[in-house]
Amino acid sequence: MGVRQEIDGGYWRRMNKTHYFISPLIMDNVSLQSCPATNPSMLNVHLVPHTHDDVGWLKTVDQYYYGDRNYIQHAGVQYILDSVIDQLQKDPARRFIYVETAFFYRWWRQQSQDTRRIVTQLVNEGRLEFINGGWCMSDEATTHYSAVIDQMTLGLRFLNDTFGECGRPLVAWHIDPFGHAREHASIFAQMGYDGFFFGRLDYQDKARRMKTKEMEMLWRASESLTPPLADLFTGVLPNGYNPPEGFCWDQSCNDAPIRDDPDLEDYNVDEIVQRFLNAAFYKTNHIIMTMGSDFQYENANLWYKNMDKLIKYVNALQAKGSKVNVLYSTPSCYLQELNLANLTWPLKTDDFFPYADDAHDFWTGYFTSRPALKLYERLSNSRLQTCNQLEVLGGPKSTSGPFGEGDSDTMSKAMGVAQHHDAVSGTEKQHVAYDYARRLATGWAHCEVLVRNSLAVLSGSESPRVFCENLNISVCPLTESSQKFSMNVYNPLGRTVSWPVRLPVNGSLYNVTDSNGKAVDSQVGNYVFMSFKHICNIYDMKSSSLLPLLSVRWFYGLSPHISINSKSILVYVFKFLKVNFDDTTGLLSSLTNLETNQTIRLTQNFYWYNASAGNNKESHQTSGAYIFRPNSSDPFVINKTAEIQTVTVSSTVQEVTQWFSPWVSQVVRLYEGHRELELEWTVGPVPIADGLGKEVITRLDTDIESSDYFYTDSNGREVLERRKDYRPTWDLKQTEPIAGNYYPINSRAYIKDDKHQLTVVTDRSQGASSIYNGSLEIMLHRRLLYDDFRGVGEPLSEPGEFFDGLVARGRLLLALTPPKMAADVHRPLAQGMVLQPLLSFQDGTPLANTKLEFSGLQAALPPAVHLLTLSQWDKDSVLIRLEHQYQAKESETHSQPVTVNLQKLFSTLEVLGASEMSLGANQWKEDMNRLQWNTGTKASLPLSLSAKDPSPWEVTLNPMEIRTFLLRVRQL
Amino acid sequence: MGVRQEIDGGYWRRMNKTHYFISPLIMDNVSLQSCPATNPSMLNVHLVPHTHDDVGWLKTVDQYYYGDRNYIQHAGVQYILDSVIDQLQKDPARRFIYVETAFFYRWWRQQSQDTRRIVTQLVNEGRLEFINGGWCMSDEATTHYSAVIDQMTLGLRFLNDTFGECGRPLVAWHIDPFGHAREHASIFAQMGYDGFFFGRLDYQDKARRMKTKEMEMLWRASESLTPPLADLFTGVLPNGYNPPEGFCWDQSCNDAPIRDDPDLEDYNVDEIVQRFLNAAFYKTNHIIMTMGSDFQYENANLWYKNMDKLIKYVNALQAKGSKVNVLYSTPSCYLQELNLANLTWPLKTDDFFPYADDAHDFWTGYFTSRPALKLYERLSNSRLQTCNQLEVLGGPKSTSGPFGEGDSDTMSKAMGVAQHHDAVSGTEKQHVAYDYARRLATGWAHCEVLVRNSLAVLSGSESPRVFCENLNISVCPLTESSQKFSMNVYNPLGRTVSWPVRLPVNGSLYNVTDSNGKAVDSQVGNYVFMSFKHICNIYDMKSSSLLPLLSVRWFYGLSPHISINSKSILVYVFKFLKVNFDDTTGLLSSLTNLETNQTIRLTQNFYWYNASAGNNKESHQTSGAYIFRPNSSDPFVINKTAEIQTVTVSSTVQEVTQWFSPWVSQVVRLYEGHRELELEWTVGPVPIADGLGKEVITRLDTDIESSDYFYTDSNGREVLERRKDYRPTWDLKQTEPIAGNYYPINSRAYIKDDKHQLTVVTDRSQGASSIYNGSLEIMLHRRLLYDDFRGVGEPLSEPGEFFDGLVARGRLLLALTPPKMAADVHRPLAQGMVLQPLLSFQDGTPLANTKLEFSGLQAALPPAVHLLTLSQWDKDSVLIRLEHQYQAKESETHSQPVTVNLQKLFSTLEVLGASEMSLGANQWKEDMNRLQWNTGTKASLPLSLSAKDPSPWEVTLNPMEIRTFLLRVRQL
Repeated sequence: MGVRQEIDGGYWRRMNKTHYFISPLIMDNVSLQSCPATNPSMLNVHLVPHTHDDVGWLKTVDQYYYGDRNYIQHAGVQYILDSVIDQLQKDPARRFIYVETAFFYRWWRQQSQDTRRIVTQLVNEGRLEFINGGWCMSDEATTHYSAVIDQMTLGLRFLNDTFGECGRPLVAWHIDPFGHAREHASIFAQMGYDGFFFGRLDYQDKARRMKTKEMEMLWRASESLTPPLADLFTGVLPNGYNPPEGFCWDQSCNDAPIRDDPDLEDYNVDEIVQRFLNAAFYKTNHIIMTMGSDFQYENANLWYKNMDKLIKYVNALQAKGSKVNVLYSTPSCYLQELNLANLTWPLKTDDFFPYADDAHDFWTGYFTSRPALKLYERLSNSRLQTCNQLEVLGGPKSTSGPFGEGDSDTMSKAMGVAQHHDAVSGTEKQHVAYDYARRLATGWAHCEVLVRNSLAVLSGSESPRVFCENLNISVCPLTESSQKFSMNVYNPLGRTVSWPVRLPVNGSLYNVTDSNGKAVDSQVGNYVFMSFKHICNIYDMKSSSLLPLLSVRWFYGLSPHISINSKSILVYVFKFLKVNFDDTTGLLSSLTNLETNQTIRLTQNFYWYNASAGNNKESHQTSGAYIFRPNSSDPFVINKTAEIQTVTVSSTVQEVTQWFSPWVSQVVRLYEGHRELELEWTVGPVPIADGLGKEVITRLDTDIESSDYFYTDSNGREVLERRKDYRPTWDLKQTEPIAGNYYPINSRAYIKDDKHQLTVVTDRSQGASSIYNGSLEIMLHRRLLYDDFRGVGEPLSEPGEFFDGLVARGRLLLALTPPKMAADVHRPLAQGMVLQPLLSFQDGTPLANTKLEFSGLQAALPPAVHLLTLSQWDKDSVLIRLEHQYQAKESETHSQPVTVNLQKLFSTLEVLGASEMSLGANQWKEDMNRLQWNTGTKASLPLSLSAKDPSPWEVTLNPMEIRTFLLRVRQL
Repeated sequence: MGVRQEIDGGYWRRMNKTHYFISPLIMDNVSLQSCPATNPSMLNVHLVPHTHDDVGWLKTVDQYYYGDRNYIQHAGVQYILDSVIDQLQKDPARRFIYVETAFFYRWWRQQSQDTRRIVTQLVNEGRLEFINGGWCMSDEATTHYSAVIDQMTLGLRFLNDTFGECGRPLVAWHIDPFGHAREHASIFAQMGYDGFFFGRLDYQDKARRMKTKEMEMLWRASESLTPPLADLFTGVLPNGYNPPEGFCWDQSCNDAPIRDDPDLEDYNVDEIVQRFLNAAFYKTNHIIMTMGSDFQYENANLWYKNMDKLIKYVNALQAKGSKVNVLYSTPSCYLQELNLANLTWPLKTDDFFPYADDAHDFWTGYFTSRPALKLYERLSNSRLQTCNQLEVLGGPKSTSGPFGEGDSDTMSKAMGVAQHHDAVSGTEKQHVAYDYARRLATGWAHCEVLVRNSLAVLSGSESPRVFCENLNISVCPLTESSQKFSMNVYNPLGRTVSWPVRLPVNGSLYNVTDSNGKAVDSQVGNYVFMSFKHICNIYDMKSSSLLPLLSVRWFYGLSPHISINSKSILVYVFKFLKVNFDDTTGLLSSLTNLETNQTIRLTQNFYWYNASAGNNKESHQTSGAYIFRPNSSDPFVINKTAEIQTVTVSSTVQEVTQWFSPWVSQVVRLYEGHRELELEWTVGPVPIADGLGKEVITRLDTDIESSDYFYTDSNGREVLERRKDYRPTWDLKQTEPIAGNYYPINSRAYIKDDKHQLTVVTDRSQGASSIYNGSLEIMLHRRLLYDDFRGVGEPLSEPGEFFDGLVARGRLLLALTPPKMAADVHRPLAQGMVLQPLLSFQDGTPLANTKLEFSGLQAALPPAVHLLTLSQWDKDSVLIRLEHQYQAKESETHSQPVTVNLQKLFSTLEVLGASEMSLGANQWKEDMNRLQWNTGTKASLPLSLSAKDPSPWEVTLNPMEIRTFLLRVRQL
């Protein structure tokens, strides 16, 4: 390894510690060296004192931090950290782990230098150990890998800046998320974690693993990356993340304290010790006990005082022959002992979805819960990447320029908390959901200033610039009122895309020209369509006349119906795609790929499952924010027929508006030059006046012979095969025929047979399944009447701004291809959905000296390469991540190693040095030295299939590989 | 002053600190010197951080200490002290007060030397200040002064032994008790407290005082003691003992924390500061704010962190002209400021009973609640005094002798917690009431060993000795089975008494002889009556024949009825008293004092008030453990007539058994040679099958012209005049005609006119009133169906051992005298009821060398003098308290100064030195230097009416005076 060494000669190590510092001392496994001694001849019980601090759930993240609104839930993280630090100082044997950096960061900045010194020493001595260490403990079902990597990087960087190597977490810790994604495991492995612990898995799976002693395993988390690159030791915690029954000594618990004064009432030492010994049976001579739970340790003394006594009295029995040794420990110390045991571990290659905690309790509802928040989070990721890129490209003036002070940090932090497993998951209380959205909006407001500054630098024009936040509901005051305006488009992708733009205007005729003055193909109907193909173009739109027109705002379902002649056959066709509608039903009837000359039967309609009200004789489980439980496997169709309301045919777009009911409508669109069919659905307000909660799906029914198989992505990256009523690792007893077959999709799902693959690319995370041969269903929206008893305490019934009930709108992009060509379409299609162009507007024509075109890259990146990260690291350096966006074997063209020259990437930056880092950017790649684990199979030996870098500057990416570099740069 | 100096020459000051130490450094007002600086030009807000820790209530004292059974109530005192000590160390400005020594003692003994050193320093610096400092915060309505003085002494001594002068509390602090007794104030004054604060007083009284600014006053707490001996500065706390609304930052509160990070959500500093300033309006420029409440500060960081911020941000406004100065303070520091203000304060001479917190919410039920516990506590006091005395008289072998290790400490501590305002008050949960009783029983078990040892020393005989605990239900296995047994009687009074003894036996003829072999007048019926007149006699009882007899156990109400010829007139008469029964009703009809030749009409019967079920339109208040609220002013009579069941006439006793109902009966007794009529009532199980809670009273109706006046004692000492529907200090609006006229009695109540005084001496604390002219009623028992919403959360419905519902039995002693002779009767009568002889039994005749008589005193004390305390202080010294038991002017004979020679008191002890102490025995009398307060009246000037000591050894007691001496002694 060692681009860093060859090119950079230790530059980074000289950096100032107080300012974005990477520790000058590379102390490998410092924390492990401070692990407590164990006794090899005894059963060692590792007590792990921990708190689980949700970065928002029933209260907002700041309410949790301060301990505000304790009437909702007693929880105050500031006090937890105060208290733990006090208690750790009382005895060097005591240990504590802390997980959520979003909270630790809040606390640290309020501490005195004295306290900081004490904490640093505790960290250096391994008494306080950071575990996981991301900004939050992310959700695994509904997050996108891009945002997950960012939020982990944000947290890990804070720890590295603050504590250096001793602050580097060695263990990933997802004790609460409701199911576990393989891509998360892959990310953790690539970030250098030695192991991963979690608390929740399917109850059948757990029962089997308990029986076969497979609670601990090696998870091979990628089918593309060469082992052990994505191998992660994974342990299921024996007791969720709670203490054993009867041993919860937090202020929030009611278990009996240890009463060891014989003069006082109810001396109970003997009883407690015996009870503890009875609980301690395991196969190895090491067991881990999680001593803590949600927001515990606010008064850490209660815990430590009683654990001190437990250790004292249990170990005192060793003198009488007991073979039990209790000690304060940490997950990494426990993991070290497991590693030293040198055992063979079972191998896991699939994932841990869906999660059920009982026969009728499938946590598959949250895959879709709060669809508007899920979309906003995804759009915010796009904006953050744009903000980050423009901060780099615009240079120092981006953050302090003509439009004031801007920053990307606020947005980074807002996105950091939004990844939490009760944030984008949709399982928080309503007021907390609003808080997440508010934070994202505030983050973007800070970014807007940065973007204005940056674009001013890049264009040479300081003319005011506005962003139209509400284009999805056709609101943009500037375009609606201006006779002449110009639009700037920033494309955050590392390659050229074609992107249709729709703007509300008040004229009927517009001349649209590009930066070269060339006319752009556009269409004025209710709004202007455009498409463009460049990274950063400025368009100049002139309305030639002012005509009174009908309002361009969309009022879904309220516009007058247009009756369609039922005999006419609707066929829409562009260069690549043809779509037919059934003349009787108004529904889609077939889809044809004109390039490959393949056609499938395709019917699409909307349905709703009747949410269980808990009055079922088999189980009282309701559908709620977490849990999806239809009270029947047959969904109700919303309308067997769609009324076709409007039909638009133009040179840029062809669209059909379908009306299904007052609360469900859809626009079907074909864009000129595009290979996908767009279904823009609008669902809501979901009616509940009938007393029935509704879980709304759209279902695509085809003649593809998919049998029981379908495919879903993991966090937007690698795809896993799913099979109805089946789990790869255990003999499933299916008890919920619908909910038990739902899986999360983050960017895509598909069904296929030998000839056809129908891929659906989505704009946000959703739940999806294939219940019938040739069918694919996606849950779009949910409105429920009951809480589902998992703590949130509210039914998921989101209020709307204008209506009683939230209206959600979104897009599904359909691609029909032969299976072997599918990735070539859906990979860029999905990436383009994730990173959308940013539009900004200026009134009038750009000033004379304005630079109308700019590209931050010297050239488009190779098609297989995605610019995952480009962000300012400090004054002189930027962080980049380059990603191979294809899986091994999925594309004949692209599933190959590809090489990029780091010095030839950017148009405005001279790259002076480069150091490769771990994926989390908190360790030099060359210093990564993960624990090795034996699975007893040859496959666990390192394979050398991946291509090497041809030269230090030329880095090669193998399929699904992400490489992370810190580049020392100079603005040109 | 200065017996100590003259006689003893500084002996005490050389004592070893670690062993019952009295501080060698007399540092006057050390704590006051450490008070925080105030600003005389500003309003100084004294924040007083405090916790109120009930020594048992919803949980037992040890459950509270450890934090066990938190599901009942979250409270763990061990953690409170841990946490506060930690937090005090973080900032020298922080203050804390601690009150309940029973808890502090438990905690201290578990602390390391390091922690003890830290705590001692905090105490020395005034950062941790002990306030009140008794073993508990005693109840004021239902406690006896003897036990109150003991429990205060126990707590204060621990503080003195542990911390010396800096641990001496300067302020009495009864923030929670439900009404305030004048005798308590008198005791506090005599213990050297500078002031007294409490939280609860009648809502009408409080409203008036708020208006007239009389919330702070000088309480002249004795009509007998020369001011300022019993003067006590008394303050009513503005907010009970809670923090101002919105400023409760304990973990148990939900008030918003101060959120002072402008980068986080909901910055609220400005709002909080403004709200605080709005709350701060008072007449002086000092106000006290109690920052704490029940069991708060378990996580003290929450409180201090937010108070630190409050102080910081409020005081920061001073720079902008604010005149508010907030500081951490203590009650004594606040008191010092009030004293320095040199104002004139209103004078208070009555008391604060009864306490009502609203129009229908009179806390007068607890005067009677749990009558059996109240009796057991009173008997336990008698036993403890006996135990203490015998520990002194028996010398070192008492605690370690032929019968093993015995001690009085266990009983002292059990009595200490039993004085708590949710203990003897009867306002605890049932399981806690059991715990108090268990502690008293355990205490007595320890004392039994001590007593056996001591009696072995004093008698020279180590023969086994048993105590018959259950004589009140005629159970004593030894006397019931032995043909010949001897009985030892220990009289703890300092004078000879006549005391009837009833023993269950199985013979029909007994020869009873005294220690000189002289026959003792006795009577065998179902049991043996005896009376004796000496301090310590041994009786030898021989049964001459064994005859099968009916069971001698009493089963109240179950024995067969004897029909009485309704025409016969029942008259019972002994030398001093004649009592008539109505031939029609079977009730008492008249009482005659044959000595004074006075007769009154006297009818006595039993009634019950129907307890309010809260369904009344005026108020939903129910009757409960605290609150007495009849739903009608007219009680139901249990029976208009009594059936006379048995009649016994003998030379020693004449008795009539009255049966009123299956659950109410009574024995009326005259003893030979006694001046009182004994009414032994048995009430219970109170039936509730009718769905009505019952509050059972007995009412004495006479032709005494008492008008609206009646008289009740205060904690068993001085008597206060009561007047129906009237309060001395405000214009009462009476809203509860019965409950609002109830007052606590601890030992006696009386009504009188010019000629007659009928005094009732009781065996325990009860509630009493006079609703009609010539009438006196006493509440005996209560059984209720509803909780009364004051926190205990249980209806007061005590289970019985054998029946559904507790059976209570007790005695009322009635004395009829002219008013001016009444005290001569009721003072010794009541004292004899409080300190009862202890009977012990041995099988067979005493061994030959047994010493059959012994008196610890050289001679009987003068009639006015009561030996209140005689207890071992340490190896070489004993603590005695001598009390003048008459009020000024109540007895022509006894209300005079009386002198006792300390060297001529004891028969077995040589008194080598004597030092007079404060009443609490934690300060030399000569060092007492209380703050002076001005009432603006001449009466506040010291009067010199009291007689002086004729010589150092001869101490003079003025009426109601108690003098406390530490005597250095040598066993003779």
